[in-house]
Amino acid sequence: MWKNELTRVLNISVPIIQAPMAGGPTSSSLVSAVSNAGGLGMIGAGYMSPSALKQQIQEVKKLTDKPFGVNLFVPTRYIVDDESLQKANSLLEPIRSDLGVEPPRQLPNYDRDMETFHRQINVILEEKISICSSTFGIPSQELMEKLKKKSIMIIGTATSVQEAIMNEMAGMDAVVVQGVESGGHRGTFLGDPEQSLIGLISLIPQVADNIGIPIIAAGGIMDGRGVMAAKCLGAKCVQMGTAFLVCDESGANLLHKDAIMQSTEDKVVLTKSFSGKLARGVNNHFIEVMKPFEDSFPEYPLQNELTNGIRKASKEAGNIECMSLWAGQSPRLAKKQSVKELIDNIKHEIEIFCNQD
Amino acid sequence: MWKNELTRVLNISVPIIQAPMAGGPTSSSLVSAVSNAGGLGMIGAGYMSPSALKQQIQEVKKLTDKPFGVNLFVPTRYIVDDESLQKANSLLEPIRSDLGVEPPRQLPNYDRDMETFHRQINVILEEKISICSSTFGIPSQELMEKLKKKSIMIIGTATSVQEAIMNEMAGMDAVVVQGVESGGHRGTFLGDPEQSLIGLISLIPQVADNIGIPIIAAGGIMDGRGVMAAKCLGAKCVQMGTAFLVCDESGANLLHKDAIMQSTEDKVVLTKSFSGKLARGVNNHFIEVMKPFEDSFPEYPLQNELTNGIRKASKEAGNIECMSLWAGQSPRLAKKQSVKELIDNIKHEIEIFCNQD
Repeated sequence: MWKNELTRVLNISVPIIQAPMAGGPTSSSLVSAVSNAGGLGMIGAGYMSPSALKQQIQEVKKLTDKPFGVNLFVPTRYIVDDESLQKANSLLEPIRSDLGVEPPRQLPNYDRDMETFHRQINVILEEKISICSSTFGIPSQELMEKLKKKSIMIIGTATSVQEAIMNEMAGMDAVVVQGVESGGHRGTFLGDPEQSLIGLISLIPQVADNIGIPIIAAGGIMDGRGVMAAKCLGAKCVQMGTAFLVCDESGANLLHKDAIMQSTEDKVVLTKSFSGKLARGVNNHFIEVMKPFEDSFPEYPLQNELTNGIRKASKEAGNIECMSLWAGQSPRLAKKQSVKELIDNIKHEIEIFCNQD
Repeated sequence: MWKNELTRVLNISVPIIQAPMAGGPTSSSLVSAVSNAGGLGMIGAGYMSPSALKQQIQEVKKLTDKPFGVNLFVPTRYIVDDESLQKANSLLEPIRSDLGVEPPRQLPNYDRDMETFHRQINVILEEKISICSSTFGIPSQELMEKLKKKSIMIIGTATSVQEAIMNEMAGMDAVVVQGVESGGHRGTFLGDPEQSLIGLISLIPQVADNIGIPIIAAGGIMDGRGVMAAKCLGAKCVQMGTAFLVCDESGANLLHKDAIMQSTEDKVVLTKSFSGKLARGVNNHFIEVMKPFEDSFPEYPLQNELTNGIRKASKEAGNIECMSLWAGQSPRLAKKQSVKELIDNIKHEIEIFCNQD
């Protein structure tokens, strides 16, 4: 099996990290199954309260004695613009009324987000988590030092060469390089997300030529072919989301899993309409209807809160048309299987590949 | 070196095809240098008259006794809509007047395009060209049979799994699979080109699982890392454009080469404004100014003709701001070197890679 400085420091036997898909998929059974199979399970703590995070960490520890990590969303400042809030609410009103959903009573607040973020980090310290990754930006120098003092390995996220360089400069131990192929939210934190839609076959070598820390390739990788390709391009590990999302152990809704299984590469689209931030998922009614307005929606996480009730009610009604069906560009490679089967298959494919001429 | 059924049938010693970049870059010295170095040189005959094509084929034959190919654009029907023509002309007027350019005297005509296409194919038959590729669609069954009867190998282009399947069904001997990373025009001929922007790390394995003919990976590949990654994903050869465009032997304008050398991955954007068809190039004034209107422009090749004089005058004035600076998503990997150096470096990188554990 393919070992390197990153797999050694992460203390994993296969170069596979499970993407920290926030909002449900990273159940304790998924996270622990990945770690038990030799990869790195990750809790997607993005939308979790500190107490819920603590509880899940303790749960995962009971299910595995292998290392696992926690991913946090770095809060960013946003403008609360009444006009765009009102416009968004009036566009969402017909859908809310169809689903019997009320508008949110409370909107996100940066100071509260930041307080939650600090408390999440305290949980990580208390629970002696050894690996932590961040999305949507780089934590403050103060927080970076706080984590480093406890020898916690910190992994950043980049969607361009410049972002990767900034991650290295900030002291990250490794960086997830997210290609255009990846599902869910784009991690772009510098410049226009529409201009950071770079295919991994282009992005990884260009990043590799410009930074010294290890690269983790993320986007569209579902099997041994993608893992080997990422290695050729200069990555030390891969991070896989959709492949794990459809696994038996994942906490993703069954409708979400089925939508991916039935999708094709040309039906997985980018949208800002669910959250105000660019993200990739299976196309549906909500995305189509909101498309003409997506650039006018309030910023993340405001729009995310405005659509929260809609997504939830749609899921409860068993209707995929207003759910966020996050997925990468390789839905045809998705297989319903156990985590162990997925990882064993990849190990087998890599072995075959390495033994051919 | 990596050999397979495709390199054998193409009779090449390195699995590298030079992308048939129409409109200047594929000079006889570029095409012959690629073939002489063991790859497959390709004449981009897209905008060439049958007599110019005949002349270039004869020129290349004098410079190499190795195989080379010719790429043709398959004409598609388009609607001539006076209103959108007028609107485009009025948007282009200020730029034309700055550059001292007149509007075109004659617009493209489908029947004439089709006649030229048939005459180009006759040149290919007369000159006993053994390899022919097509972009923007699949030639008629009648033309396919005409080529096959002369044992000409025919290579199609696909940007989605469905397009790849159609290429196989039509009898193509191989298919170029074009990822989102690639420079110049998108080859999409089915559905919305905006929904066929798939990264190669996703697209190649999904195509490979659905067709039996050999796959040629195109998009963002500039060195041995990309070539090896494409192999892992399931491709039998790669097609490289930008890497050859900046080579010494290429006929591309020096300003174009310099613009690529100075660009970064986030500055290579998609635009419809130059031709009416989605294409990728280095961002400049023309793309920025026309962006809000690009969806209203006349279809390809009408818009292409409307901007022809502008692109030409901008080039002659030594001003990159209104030139079409086609390039893929890996400009940071571009190197000014000879074709032989490029190909020898890739051979060397592949050797090193194959000899490591």
